[in-house]
Amino acid sequence: MSTSIFYHAGCPVCVSAEHDIINLIGEQNVEIVNIGEDKNRIAEAEQVGVKSVPALLTPTKNVLHINFGASIEDVKA
Amino acid sequence: MSTSIFYHAGCPVCVSAEHDIINLIGEQNVEIVNIGEDKNRIAEAEQVGVKSVPALLTPTKNVLHINFGASIEDVKA
Repeated sequence: MSTSIFYHAGCPVCVSAEHDIINLIGEQNVEIVNIGEDKNRIAEAEQVGVKSVPALLTPTKNVLHINFGASIEDVKA
Repeated sequence: MSTSIFYHAGCPVCVSAEHDIINLIGEQNVEIVNIGEDKNRIAEAEQVGVKSVPALLTPTKNVLHINFGASIEDVKA
């Protein structure tokens, strides 16, 4: 299985979703990126279509916005 | 792995997310429920916390609302 990327910003909704995603698809199948800490990956997240976090970029490059923690604009601020 | 339940209502956003979820976690690990057709499962979906579809109920009973297709109220209508 190709790798997915889980973008989050450390918010409680994000942490909860992160646990669920790791349980569902397996830690080895997902890269976890905290764009609240790793701000130089915000542009990358926006480019692939992430509008809010938490969000999962699938191997087929679809973005699944999961619940709602924070908008990308909030993370930038 | 315990089974997850994917609730949807046949909308385009739902179908797209269904494909993604099946690819990610495997068809054998998820029950697909179309509450647009199977209206007697709407109450069950509401009870577990589904507010909109598509949504995934994890084995740990968390609801992941994925993107946004339709609200439960819309499905009832």
